[in-house]
Amino acid sequence: MKDGWNARWLRLYSHVGTHMDAQKHFDVGKHITCQKPLAPTLAESKEIHRTCVRAQKRFMVHENFRFQPWHRKIKELIQAGVLGDRLHTITQRMRTGDGYGPDAYLGRQPYFRTMPRLLMFETGIHFIDVLRFLGGEVSTVFAKMRTLNPVIAGEDAAIVLLDFASGAQGIIDGNRYNEANHPDPRYTFGTTVIEGSNGTLRLSLDGTLTLQPLGEQEREVKYAHARRGFAGDCVYSIQQHFLEAFQSGSPFETNGDDYLKSLAVLEACYDSAANKQIVKL
Amino acid sequence: MKDGWNARWLRLYSHVGTHMDAQKHFDVGKHITCQKPLAPTLAESKEIHRTCVRAQKRFMVHENFRFQPWHRKIKELIQAGVLGDRLHTITQRMRTGDGYGPDAYLGRQPYFRTMPRLLMFETGIHFIDVLRFLGGEVSTVFAKMRTLNPVIAGEDAAIVLLDFASGAQGIIDGNRYNEANHPDPRYTFGTTVIEGSNGTLRLSLDGTLTLQPLGEQEREVKYAHARRGFAGDCVYSIQQHFLEAFQSGSPFETNGDDYLKSLAVLEACYDSAANKQIVKL
Repeated sequence: MKDGWNARWLRLYSHVGTHMDAQKHFDVGKHITCQKPLAPTLAESKEIHRTCVRAQKRFMVHENFRFQPWHRKIKELIQAGVLGDRLHTITQRMRTGDGYGPDAYLGRQPYFRTMPRLLMFETGIHFIDVLRFLGGEVSTVFAKMRTLNPVIAGEDAAIVLLDFASGAQGIIDGNRYNEANHPDPRYTFGTTVIEGSNGTLRLSLDGTLTLQPLGEQEREVKYAHARRGFAGDCVYSIQQHFLEAFQSGSPFETNGDDYLKSLAVLEACYDSAANKQIVKL
Repeated sequence: MKDGWNARWLRLYSHVGTHMDAQKHFDVGKHITCQKPLAPTLAESKEIHRTCVRAQKRFMVHENFRFQPWHRKIKELIQAGVLGDRLHTITQRMRTGDGYGPDAYLGRQPYFRTMPRLLMFETGIHFIDVLRFLGGEVSTVFAKMRTLNPVIAGEDAAIVLLDFASGAQGIIDGNRYNEANHPDPRYTFGTTVIEGSNGTLRLSLDGTLTLQPLGEQEREVKYAHARRGFAGDCVYSIQQHFLEAFQSGSPFETNGDDYLKSLAVLEACYDSAANKQIVKL
């Protein structure tokens, strides 16, 4: 990229290992929106963020899952109190089924096979961020990880138990080897169940959202979502958010300070799995 | 109960605190089938079993969940190899919704409110036993427990992660406060997903069982089950097993030696939750 480009901001969507170059662009006066993962390590991610702060440039992480229309609707419903005044549990279950057999991942993302950290680093981070979006800050993490397919280097299955500061709990149950019972597991990327003191919200693989207040029948919650773009057109939505916040000067929802909290949870997952114990944040 | 009764065996289905009296009946020559929980503590359960062994009397625990028709069919399918040669995960999710609000449990089982150990001791033990039935012996346990309803003494929500000696993992996710989206949550008492190297079996709340081999459509597995008696007529089935084994002299499937292994897993759950760490068995 040439320094002389007449642009006020840059989008960095290249391979994770290249984002450290972002520093150069901060230095020459560019604001940045950067694809996740930011960098191979937490230390490098922090360095990218520090560089941006030093240069007094704006920085947004392209973390699009929380911009999926179902997550926006679920957040709105929780805030409106439909589950009561106490959140009990957020359970996220993901089965993509794209990672079994000797040719796992070769078709779409062959570099998945050699990544030393796969499931949580590449995909689970989205759900960590979504759980923080819905449940608030995380206080403890316990995780177990496995490599089910022997042809790959990293983990392709993980179960993560979280405590939120609010007292709620989170469960992320991810597995890229086994399959979902739906033709398009990459629309919602999984099922989500949110339980509170007054009922349950459930998100299905086809985007259907239901509410079941305690003692009542489950009923569908209507909201706008469509098979357009990626995963409910969330890339369009995050870019819209970027432009609005950039023009108005208001904070980015997924700014560097916020996203480093999701990355700290991610690191805690790997620490917990390696050391077989709960990690406090 | 009078010692002079002309019976060769006794069924002890009374309250958990009364089963220690079983010793008297062993001493006067009775064989015993005893309802779970055997006793309030593991030590007392072991003492009941030791007494039976000393008296050279036969002893079977009335653990009926593994005799539910869906669990017999799932076991048969696993043994027939429909999931491949490696079991990945057994996930049991239970939501009974009978424990919310100020009058929780009063209608059916009011003593639930004062039990110091509720969910895992009273109900979760069934799923521990079912998971052992389907997945083999358990090598480690990690558990988190909560009391969601403040009017009760014990825990009404728990999440338990197990390692099986085979390398498979188990998840028991139980909660008696929040509800299932089915009119009769006490037919199967939950949903079960069994994943292996070649596919997935799924049990629904209405007893429907499906098989989805990797790369294929999910299809229903037909088997005999009916809304007769308790939970698929499993009480009839376990009594049939008792009579057959009693008459033939073959071992009871849920004999004392076997059931003490399920109880050891149960104790490990409470130890893990209290000490916030993995417990090895």
